[in-house]
Amino acid sequence: MNLALFQTENILSQTDGRIRVCLKERQHEHIVKIQKLGPGQEIQLGLLNGKIGRGFIVEQDQSSTTIEVSLCQAPPAANPIKLIMALPRPLMLKRVLQSAVSMGVKEIHLIHSNKVEKSYWQSPQVSDEELFQHALLGLEQGVDTVIPKISKHQRFRPFVEDLLPELIQNHRAYVAHPSTHAQSAKVSTEDCYLAVGPEGGFTDYEVEKLEQAGMQTLSLGPRILRVETAVPVLLAKLSD
Amino acid sequence: MNLALFQTENILSQTDGRIRVCLKERQHEHIVKIQKLGPGQEIQLGLLNGKIGRGFIVEQDQSSTTIEVSLCQAPPAANPIKLIMALPRPLMLKRVLQSAVSMGVKEIHLIHSNKVEKSYWQSPQVSDEELFQHALLGLEQGVDTVIPKISKHQRFRPFVEDLLPELIQNHRAYVAHPSTHAQSAKVSTEDCYLAVGPEGGFTDYEVEKLEQAGMQTLSLGPRILRVETAVPVLLAKLSD
Repeated sequence: MNLALFQTENILSQTDGRIRVCLKERQHEHIVKIQKLGPGQEIQLGLLNGKIGRGFIVEQDQSSTTIEVSLCQAPPAANPIKLIMALPRPLMLKRVLQSAVSMGVKEIHLIHSNKVEKSYWQSPQVSDEELFQHALLGLEQGVDTVIPKISKHQRFRPFVEDLLPELIQNHRAYVAHPSTHAQSAKVSTEDCYLAVGPEGGFTDYEVEKLEQAGMQTLSLGPRILRVETAVPVLLAKLSD
Repeated sequence: MNLALFQTENILSQTDGRIRVCLKERQHEHIVKIQKLGPGQEIQLGLLNGKIGRGFIVEQDQSSTTIEVSLCQAPPAANPIKLIMALPRPLMLKRVLQSAVSMGVKEIHLIHSNKVEKSYWQSPQVSDEELFQHALLGLEQGVDTVIPKISKHQRFRPFVEDLLPELIQNHRAYVAHPSTHAQSAKVSTEDCYLAVGPEGGFTDYEVEKLEQAGMQTLSLGPRILRVETAVPVLLAKLSD
């Protein structure tokens, strides 16, 4: 937690641009047990979808930490890459999402694919509330406040046939897939869509459909990376 | 397991370049339960520190899979980046090591740092045997056979003062650290050393010592990434 994100419901009072914020539960525990911060000490805060600032702890008891903060700094620029990702298995989903969000990705589409087990979609980890929590942790890691938009698409064909062509219109769009005619992932770009398959990769049929929708295949070379490694690598290679 | 790595002790017989290999335990279980492969089916194999080839399963029982393989292909080129990494907490160590090894890193130094808990060094995850196992999994993921050299340095000063200057002689060397005078991590390089701090970062003193030893600081921008995200990102940004 390099930044404690608060929401309007955490605000106790507000005068002359100075905001009193009360943090509880996970954030309070983290401040006390991990950061070991107490009254008088400085801490970085951000308002969800708002600005960032440094505050001081003014009160602390067993269940809450109260901070006074002035918000003055804009969050960092968004990552211009939009991610389309075959739903990873629930435990990995958490890590991959946090990692992508910490890198500033603001649009994430979780899609179905042949090698995604259908039961994954029923996992509590994939509920809107849990996705929101994963995103919060990613923002707190990456010192950002702007919550990403995460969409779920449980059927591959309607997504790829009906939604995708419109989505990527006027954007570059790449699907990461080892392929003989793939270009290597060293494309500097401002603004693009990037599709990443499940462990085991997209099927040939799926790649064909993604290409038909307007995506170009992009290769990472002979090495096969796990999704949790491939996503940061691709985001790093595609951005400046 | 995109490649099953075998060792000389797995070899049953060898005639005219065709090798009979017997895989047991983890690898056998993976072939049966995850890959769902049986007699007659093709599988990719590699000899530890040797070549890669495609083989066919010739026998399978409850506890072993026997494969006949011809090795013909060299492993992929090594990653020219050498990694110096503050020892991550044991659970993360496994993931970060596998990820770096899957990306072809062949020289890894695990070092102590102020924010590394001393107890981490006593974890079974940090034993030579476990480090070897993590590396094997990374190679099997990245379709590689060449085992990396992993060294442990439990004291920061002797490493940074006595060993590091010699190690990085005639190489470029970078320490990833947010800093006002840091250059941004977009340096294409053939061959370099890269130092990555613990969660929470190197201390100012440590950065100073690393710089004195000849390393340049390198920044990833305003966002702070977890070690497991920062390592693939840095490897991707520093290599072609």
